[in-house]
Amino acid sequence: MMPHESAHTVQSYEQELEHLRSLISQMGGLVERQTAQAIAAVADHDEVAALEVPELDPKVDDLERQTEALVIRLLALRAPMAGDLREVVAALKISGDLERIGDCATSIARRALRSELLSYPVSMTGLFSMGRMVQENLRRTIDAMDRRDSELARSVWQSDMAVDELYVSMFRELVTYMMEDPRNIGPCTHLLFVAKNLERIGDHATNICERVYYAATGRILPVLRPRGGIADQGL
Amino acid sequence: MMPHESAHTVQSYEQELEHLRSLISQMGGLVERQTAQAIAAVADHDEVAALEVPELDPKVDDLERQTEALVIRLLALRAPMAGDLREVVAALKISGDLERIGDCATSIARRALRSELLSYPVSMTGLFSMGRMVQENLRRTIDAMDRRDSELARSVWQSDMAVDELYVSMFRELVTYMMEDPRNIGPCTHLLFVAKNLERIGDHATNICERVYYAATGRILPVLRPRGGIADQGL
Repeated sequence: MMPHESAHTVQSYEQELEHLRSLISQMGGLVERQTAQAIAAVADHDEVAALEVPELDPKVDDLERQTEALVIRLLALRAPMAGDLREVVAALKISGDLERIGDCATSIARRALRSELLSYPVSMTGLFSMGRMVQENLRRTIDAMDRRDSELARSVWQSDMAVDELYVSMFRELVTYMMEDPRNIGPCTHLLFVAKNLERIGDHATNICERVYYAATGRILPVLRPRGGIADQGL
Repeated sequence: MMPHESAHTVQSYEQELEHLRSLISQMGGLVERQTAQAIAAVADHDEVAALEVPELDPKVDDLERQTEALVIRLLALRAPMAGDLREVVAALKISGDLERIGDCATSIARRALRSELLSYPVSMTGLFSMGRMVQENLRRTIDAMDRRDSELARSVWQSDMAVDELYVSMFRELVTYMMEDPRNIGPCTHLLFVAKNLERIGDHATNICERVYYAATGRILPVLRPRGGIADQGL
């Protein structure tokens, strides 16, 4: 009996860890879709895409709650050690960042649906570049997470600096438009927050990369990440 | 020997839990101070206050790292159960929200130091009311956390709706100023983000209240909190 029971326990523990990974991976897939749709909503005035983003929110929230419940069950009943413990704690933190990425995407999509933006000719190269870059970084972050690839995580983490630089230049571009014509003020204040939300999605992605790197290697990335001038300038 | 050893172990476990509470409480005290100083920085052009806020940031980050290390040690060596396990997991989540409150306060303080704002006559009743309300809610949140007072937590959680309402009216007020005179555009775009950061501090405080309530009672507050029209309007 005993070897069988022991094998059964081990398998079931492994299954629970796999279930945890699958919950995080599903969350990653959903917020990646939310982000892509939110960017399409602003950049292409795609109302259908905009409406889909908030609809996905309850699913993301529900997956976050399932993740937390499973983490507590794993900690209470399985007492994971060393690398497994790091992974379980990382999953809890990562689910928080994924949930906030979903919130940022939802905030972008809701602004995209406002009349000021729906009728506004968005022609900023900054928005397109920033959107594409954030989406690409998020996709690579989810990949690094799914594959527990510490080198990919470190590489995405470093490339967030370019997002920050684009954010700073987009901020300036938008303020210039507002100065040129007061009719730009309404739509551009919303675009300022769109840019800020994209920048925050990039930040949450780097948080996840730090977690993936730590869970996989037991080492931490440097405390201070190179930023694109955001902190010094208070933007 | 055994009763002595056992008593020693129990005491030491209690001491570790107390240490965890003290780390969270210290973080709470620091971000409360950062928030108060950030509000003074904007509302009273207090440069000394503004400069103190980012200086406190590394201390907050360090306490967050200490909290996480202690949580992992407690989980690995003490295998806390039931209420203790809920509290340990809550501490991990709460430290994340506290750290972000510190980030929001730092972002406000850095904007307060920009020349556009230092010379700008801030005379908005909205900013003062919102600042006072967020500061008061945060103080009560930290109290509820320190005393593990679920009823206080529930009461603060409910009163965040008033912060959201003030945010919406401040957003409108600021856009009006920008429309009236293009010289307001520079400073008011920064004040828009100040208002947004205050609103986010309020949100993080409600997250903490939800955690305190759950850790103390094992029950969750309703999923959908009453908001002040922010979500519907995409502000």
